[in-house]
Amino acid sequence: MTQPVYQRVALIGLGLIASSMFWAMKRGGLAAEVTGFARSAETRDTARRIGLCDRVCDSAAEAAEGADLVVLCVPVGAMGKVMQEIGPVLKPGATVSDVGSVKRHVIDAVSPHIPEGVHFVPAHPLAGTEHSGPEAGFAELYDNRWCLLVPTPDADPQAVADLRALWEGMGANVEEMDADHHDLVLAVTSHAPHLIAYTMVGVADDLRRVTDSEVIKYSAAGFRDFTRIAASDPTMWRDVFLTNKDATLEILGRFTEELFALQRAIRTGDGDQLFDYFTRTRAIRRGIIEAGQDTAAPNFGRGNGKA
Amino acid sequence: MTQPVYQRVALIGLGLIASSMFWAMKRGGLAAEVTGFARSAETRDTARRIGLCDRVCDSAAEAAEGADLVVLCVPVGAMGKVMQEIGPVLKPGATVSDVGSVKRHVIDAVSPHIPEGVHFVPAHPLAGTEHSGPEAGFAELYDNRWCLLVPTPDADPQAVADLRALWEGMGANVEEMDADHHDLVLAVTSHAPHLIAYTMVGVADDLRRVTDSEVIKYSAAGFRDFTRIAASDPTMWRDVFLTNKDATLEILGRFTEELFALQRAIRTGDGDQLFDYFTRTRAIRRGIIEAGQDTAAPNFGRGNGKA
Repeated sequence: MTQPVYQRVALIGLGLIASSMFWAMKRGGLAAEVTGFARSAETRDTARRIGLCDRVCDSAAEAAEGADLVVLCVPVGAMGKVMQEIGPVLKPGATVSDVGSVKRHVIDAVSPHIPEGVHFVPAHPLAGTEHSGPEAGFAELYDNRWCLLVPTPDADPQAVADLRALWEGMGANVEEMDADHHDLVLAVTSHAPHLIAYTMVGVADDLRRVTDSEVIKYSAAGFRDFTRIAASDPTMWRDVFLTNKDATLEILGRFTEELFALQRAIRTGDGDQLFDYFTRTRAIRRGIIEAGQDTAAPNFGRGNGKA
Repeated sequence: MTQPVYQRVALIGLGLIASSMFWAMKRGGLAAEVTGFARSAETRDTARRIGLCDRVCDSAAEAAEGADLVVLCVPVGAMGKVMQEIGPVLKPGATVSDVGSVKRHVIDAVSPHIPEGVHFVPAHPLAGTEHSGPEAGFAELYDNRWCLLVPTPDADPQAVADLRALWEGMGANVEEMDADHHDLVLAVTSHAPHLIAYTMVGVADDLRRVTDSEVIKYSAAGFRDFTRIAASDPTMWRDVFLTNKDATLEILGRFTEELFALQRAIRTGDGDQLFDYFTRTRAIRRGIIEAGQDTAAPNFGRGNGKA
């Protein structure tokens, strides 16, 4: 038996990310006990029914009390309030972390409520599916995915090392990054693409001359991928855009600029410009496959996952 | 042994679509002999090496001569020229079809070169992968995918029925549609999403403060899906945009309009508008899964396909 990294871990919020963490921690023997809390009574009932968490508690404070690690797995906009609730019960030497997709805002919202003697090490696992909720989790979600740690300059080295060991134990590759750079990188690779996908799916729905059923029936590869992205949790994504506003708007500004240039190439019939652009983007795709973040198999992403 | 639908089928162009047709026709015993031609000598050599087509010819006319069905599988912009070449050798009663992603332009370019006594039944299989070329094909590509037939009002009913039988034999579900409506439906479900994905991948590449290697390394689900779309064949897509110009530009115009509205919601902090929009798009995704065009499994599209 491996030595657990933490004696007790508390998961606050029990959606896809937290439930996958639970199964991954169990798989790796990484925590002796895992407590959990979700705001919705229905979610707590589901968690108890499917054996998600060793103990499901009826308040965030109850779950967090006595924990060596508390992970905030709630939407980015709710992190500050939850932290305020659990701050008073945290034991000295405990570590608080989170899994939010935006880091500067979470640091600003959570830090003021971290008590003296408690460590705060923000984190962001780059993994997910289109599914949400306590039943969506599976142990393999983080295997060979990245988890970015965003420690503040004065972070406790041992607290950072323990959290790294936990994520590595759950299968992730861990890197450290500055909060503002994290938010820009994610605006490019995740936040802007999500807003764009949401928009395109909305346009398709609005178009009166093409019925929804036609759009659905004939959704070729392009649109189908967009709908998968656009099926993500609405609350989570609302909070992401509201809290990573500047970086997202910057990327969207550049995006519309480039899109207008390509639209003009279409309008004027400039085939060479289109061809050169499409050839360039193809190389980026090859890079992603070579970097091992996806497979070359048709329409196939990650090999594991629930059926 | 099933009765073949056609004695001889000629495939002009030997990329992903044609090579998948060949393997699907062989699987179903749908054609007694399949001839093939590709403009590039290298592609013809590859085809001969891997046994793609019963006979690989050194000119389009040689492949088409005596064929009961000739399928134009070249980029949309090249269809007219190829048709001009093969028109004189076609046998009376033969059918010409194509697999182009745009239909009005193909009809306008091909029809003038169809000889008296030869039928023309345009078609468009809604299937593909990010891979191109003669080695990318596989027999299952069309299984349970749609193939849209776009016959002109005066089309020969038997010619349409035979082509339908061929596509159904290759595993596809067949529907008929008017050319202009086809081009609008495809602009929404495929053409505009492809241009948008190309654009976003280009923006990521341009951004100097985030390195390509970071973009590649941390490409979360959203961006990864975009890169898959943006890896499609540059020549094919250049031609699609140039030949379905009006519908694509109309959809892109609506798209930027909606994107600006969402950007404004982000800028002004209107979380309700974002939440409502994202909730609406989620329902469309559910419709696609219910319509059987995709599975609910995480990051998993079609179950078959080469490894």
